[in-house]
Amino acid sequence: MTIDELGEFGLIERIRRALPEPGRGVIVGIGDDVAVLAAEGGKVWLATCDVQVEGIHFLREAISARDLGRKALAINLSDVASAGGRPRFALVSLGLPRGLPAEFVDGLYAGLREEAERAGVDIVGGNITGTRAGVFVDIFMLGEADRAEVKLRSGARPGDAILVTGSLGDAAAGVALLLEPELSAEADYAALARARRDTPTARLREGALLGASPLVGAMTDISDGLAGDLGHICEKSGVGARVLASALPVSPGNRALARAARGDEWHFALHGGEDYELLFTAPAGSAEALARLIRDETGTPVSIIGEVLPAVAAPGAPRIELRLPDGRTVPLEPSGWDHLKADRKGGAA
Amino acid sequence: MTIDELGEFGLIERIRRALPEPGRGVIVGIGDDVAVLAAEGGKVWLATCDVQVEGIHFLREAISARDLGRKALAINLSDVASAGGRPRFALVSLGLPRGLPAEFVDGLYAGLREEAERAGVDIVGGNITGTRAGVFVDIFMLGEADRAEVKLRSGARPGDAILVTGSLGDAAAGVALLLEPELSAEADYAALARARRDTPTARLREGALLGASPLVGAMTDISDGLAGDLGHICEKSGVGARVLASALPVSPGNRALARAARGDEWHFALHGGEDYELLFTAPAGSAEALARLIRDETGTPVSIIGEVLPAVAAPGAPRIELRLPDGRTVPLEPSGWDHLKADRKGGAA
Repeated sequence: MTIDELGEFGLIERIRRALPEPGRGVIVGIGDDVAVLAAEGGKVWLATCDVQVEGIHFLREAISARDLGRKALAINLSDVASAGGRPRFALVSLGLPRGLPAEFVDGLYAGLREEAERAGVDIVGGNITGTRAGVFVDIFMLGEADRAEVKLRSGARPGDAILVTGSLGDAAAGVALLLEPELSAEADYAALARARRDTPTARLREGALLGASPLVGAMTDISDGLAGDLGHICEKSGVGARVLASALPVSPGNRALARAARGDEWHFALHGGEDYELLFTAPAGSAEALARLIRDETGTPVSIIGEVLPAVAAPGAPRIELRLPDGRTVPLEPSGWDHLKADRKGGAA
Repeated sequence: MTIDELGEFGLIERIRRALPEPGRGVIVGIGDDVAVLAAEGGKVWLATCDVQVEGIHFLREAISARDLGRKALAINLSDVASAGGRPRFALVSLGLPRGLPAEFVDGLYAGLREEAERAGVDIVGGNITGTRAGVFVDIFMLGEADRAEVKLRSGARPGDAILVTGSLGDAAAGVALLLEPELSAEADYAALARARRDTPTARLREGALLGASPLVGAMTDISDGLAGDLGHICEKSGVGARVLASALPVSPGNRALARAARGDEWHFALHGGEDYELLFTAPAGSAEALARLIRDETGTPVSIIGEVLPAVAAPGAPRIELRLPDGRTVPLEPSGWDHLKADRKGGAA
């Protein structure tokens, strides 16, 4: 059995089972967006890491060093935001190939610094190593939160509404436009898709507001695609879900490109990765008010895209169903970006 | 200017200058073995990261997955120990190439778990990504310490004695035996050198005792070689140093191999990397008693290898001098393993 046959999440589950139960001070260990570590006075530390690897997450000729720095930090900020926390400290572990111009590192750190300052994060250390080929930027981030406000993937209850910030599918469209020269889009949409791909914005204020709200049940960020990340919520919460395609925040430009590229107008929104939007649940009766609060406080649109269903009874039955605009209901495979199975073009194999 | 022309520490200094002064809660930022972050009640968190990259730090055909896991964790434990702290939590960021057998990851985690349990550390999370080629194991570690007990590179004072735990040069000898087939050593020494190379042991108990001792001025661990790491202490403390070759804890087998391989019997001890011994300073009058305390409490030998000198006055004058057994004094270049300049064979270029 190879790791790509097992897949990223199969491998994580295998690892989790091989490790002992965590000891004192570990509130949440392996298997959520962040680890949650007890601190003094009802506070917790949130610890997470995520990496950008050349040839896997980015092509050096297609992204500026500064944008790469911004993105590498932003994707970690997003994990802290998705737990309802405030990011505080980052360590930067760089792998750099011989002969790389020092200006590349200058640019990378300009982007890291810009994003860190925006988020109020201090870059406090790190490591530098050579590589045989290719750059990697691995970031370790510590955030803080009140213990009572931490949101996990495991808090969804049947009957809850499912909500998402912002829009879906644009980063995946940006990747497709980069790698598939036969595709095209209007200049304005292409620019937006490129920006969503290269310089995602972590939903920090939204995450802090949602963390502070006792209405929010489960929360995660969409890094692997809606279907995959909603699948994680369903799995950890022991529930199913129904998603309404007509309620998805997807632009006409995105749907047109998805249809042209994948034969399915919802493909990028459902299975594309790197949206870095927040996906969360709340009691159905409060969902509209919660969405309005976030919109009013931050200007970020929030959509109610479906509902949480009871746990699936029959083995093998789909956890998530997709209600199409024509009324048909189809199973939604909880597959998204899998870093071990995927190649840059086709998404998860 | 390329990064290898600048070198690892030139690049770190360039990065440090480009970042703003750290904000609230950061007691020590970039430039020591660990970042020191304020916690409640006079405690601090120590944060560090270090990575093992295939083809740079290890050859997959020459180390077992289990030993790689042990080593990847141990080198981070060593950083926490070198600050006088207690390691608590680790995150594991893996880069894995397609087609890697899942058993490799099982073995890796068996080693990580073994070392974590020995040290009382919880593995609380991490990340897995694909790579185009080669494995990397990047570890982020959090330790804790009493603020008053944290030891840094910056605490050395002229007149202090310089001390080191254990023995020097054996890991570098192990690397040379691996990569240079024309070299040979007696079976017993070859086995010891191989073990020091593949399964270093972090000096955790020694580090905790030295952290608790107000006698200890500066402390670091030897990862880049004695000359390089003592150079860091001198630079951060604004002092010079004299090292006595005859006092170095180097075995006859190591000296013989260094003479055969590099034409200098002290080469591995002075310039080899990955010893993961603790290098520290203490007032000369207390050094013997401190060395005895560590020996008595842990069984680990401690050697007094030199003394701290006043800051070097003349620009360009060597910071560190080496007193040879024949009485000659030669400058000791503070060069050791540089991850950007080095190749696996010859040490720093």
